[in-house]
Amino acid sequence: MRALACDLGGTNVRFGLGIDGRLDPESVVQLPNDRFSGFGAALKHYLGQARVGGVDRAVVALAAPIDGDTIRLTNRDWTIARAEIAQIAGTGDVVLINDFVALGAALSRSEALATRPVLPGAAEQGVKLVLGAGTGFNASALVADGHVLAAEIGHTGFAPEPGLETELRDHFAGRFGRCSLDRVLSGSGLVALYRLACGRSGRAAQLDDAAAVTAEGAGGRDADAALACGTLAGMLGRTAGDLALTFLPRGGIYLTGGVTRALAPFIQGADSPFARAFLAKGRMRELMQGFALDLVVDDSAALVGCLAWPDLPSNNVRGACAAGPT
Amino acid sequence: MRALACDLGGTNVRFGLGIDGRLDPESVVQLPNDRFSGFGAALKHYLGQARVGGVDRAVVALAAPIDGDTIRLTNRDWTIARAEIAQIAGTGDVVLINDFVALGAALSRSEALATRPVLPGAAEQGVKLVLGAGTGFNASALVADGHVLAAEIGHTGFAPEPGLETELRDHFAGRFGRCSLDRVLSGSGLVALYRLACGRSGRAAQLDDAAAVTAEGAGGRDADAALACGTLAGMLGRTAGDLALTFLPRGGIYLTGGVTRALAPFIQGADSPFARAFLAKGRMRELMQGFALDLVVDDSAALVGCLAWPDLPSNNVRGACAAGPT
Repeated sequence: MRALACDLGGTNVRFGLGIDGRLDPESVVQLPNDRFSGFGAALKHYLGQARVGGVDRAVVALAAPIDGDTIRLTNRDWTIARAEIAQIAGTGDVVLINDFVALGAALSRSEALATRPVLPGAAEQGVKLVLGAGTGFNASALVADGHVLAAEIGHTGFAPEPGLETELRDHFAGRFGRCSLDRVLSGSGLVALYRLACGRSGRAAQLDDAAAVTAEGAGGRDADAALACGTLAGMLGRTAGDLALTFLPRGGIYLTGGVTRALAPFIQGADSPFARAFLAKGRMRELMQGFALDLVVDDSAALVGCLAWPDLPSNNVRGACAAGPT
Repeated sequence: MRALACDLGGTNVRFGLGIDGRLDPESVVQLPNDRFSGFGAALKHYLGQARVGGVDRAVVALAAPIDGDTIRLTNRDWTIARAEIAQIAGTGDVVLINDFVALGAALSRSEALATRPVLPGAAEQGVKLVLGAGTGFNASALVADGHVLAAEIGHTGFAPEPGLETELRDHFAGRFGRCSLDRVLSGSGLVALYRLACGRSGRAAQLDDAAAVTAEGAGGRDADAALACGTLAGMLGRTAGDLALTFLPRGGIYLTGGVTRALAPFIQGADSPFARAFLAKGRMRELMQGFALDLVVDDSAALVGCLAWPDLPSNNVRGACAAGPT
């Protein structure tokens, strides 16, 4: 069985090949969406490479709720149709799943993921949780018996601390009528925080994308960028703590996403802004110390999840997946 | 099989008897905790009534994380020990479960609960969610195959809107260092909102408990109380919406809790502050309209859950339950 795995985010698309359910690491390719007019063009480009060959199945993970055979990406004006994928890939076995459902499925093979410890805790039997910030924010949980719970947590409300975070909330609430986690726990949130920090310190904003802010912030060369990175890492830690209280994931918490990985210097270590915010749950501090937290450094976790998904029991959850004959 | 069911909240305790798993409605009694020196005294009082008789099992639902055989209530200085319950009830079969886990278990018998519709949606197969405000706030989910997910959502952070809600957040963050949902989605949160509303309108606060604020607010006799009730109902609706996005409960959402029920005039109807806030999730509005929402008017739902729990598969989840020989 040769399966195409695809992880389509708001900014980049990753492709890989699974041979009998295992990802071939040499087949993994990441491409910027901006290079292509639509998903079909990117898929044709990947399949056109000499070494790919034919596939029996295609599993495509998307940053969107999956409800039907034609999906519109949440953060980019692209439409993804199962029929078009079937035609291009040359197989009627096409599955669309939510990208975080793919990550939740990957937790069923967590030993196959490359991780670095953030907080030790004591991982044991129980719910596993994955969460992450990139173009937007989301999470999913793997519960007993291999069921994956789909979620749209990026659209829940942001709970700011007084001060800079409340300014950030007001900034987005003023523009969009409300302030969701997607707005703030993401690259756009980091840039907005950096601009607010510059405004407070009376300096002109020099940096205009999230990669520059994390590079300058982590290097300690720019005080406003460092404040933005530390604040975002704290917001991410507090949100991870809120989700830990929501799912009580005794089986461990996995952090993923491009922005999360770029903020690693502000996340790792028991005294990081992330860790301090994660643990700061008042009377629940002791409970929080029991959770094991790891940073997923492997960019291809969602591809692993695409290949794991067909073997899990919950492959027909509405909102999580579209499958069946195309 | 005669089982004692008990629902111990921060303010009141409810007892009832199950005969072969079904709650005898005539056996249900509610008592204020303030009348007793501790849980043992309340239990002795109930069991001392002529018609109760002996029991084969006791299942006690508590507003606290359950981790071990001796539990301290989160919102009251009482300690609950399985050994003491076994001694007073005269049975070694004693189970302690989290109160919201009991409510989650009650969802497996949702047809037995007395409910009123809040939003129609389209309840179908899938996750069911229960949430509610009383002395504090919490929720739990019943997932596929009858597993109940325990949670401590009352300790997650409050996401305020700009204005009165942000004042409320600052009020509690100033006192406690942070502002959790427990502080605001509760009787104490309603009273604090009422006082802030009085301060804004330049009137002296006349009411000093949540029951008075809901009575005056619902009757339309006190503008500050009405504003506090409408604001709290909106906060509750927004939080219910956030939890709907977190669990995607296609099987329905059930609202419970004493404060929730008292706010019913601000919750029912598609144009209520609750319903408007529940649906206001930007690009996710259509998704939100698909969820069915019901208000549980039956005070004894947690007792039903105590009796349902032993038949469900997840009766050994850490954090949710303590059982086994005493």
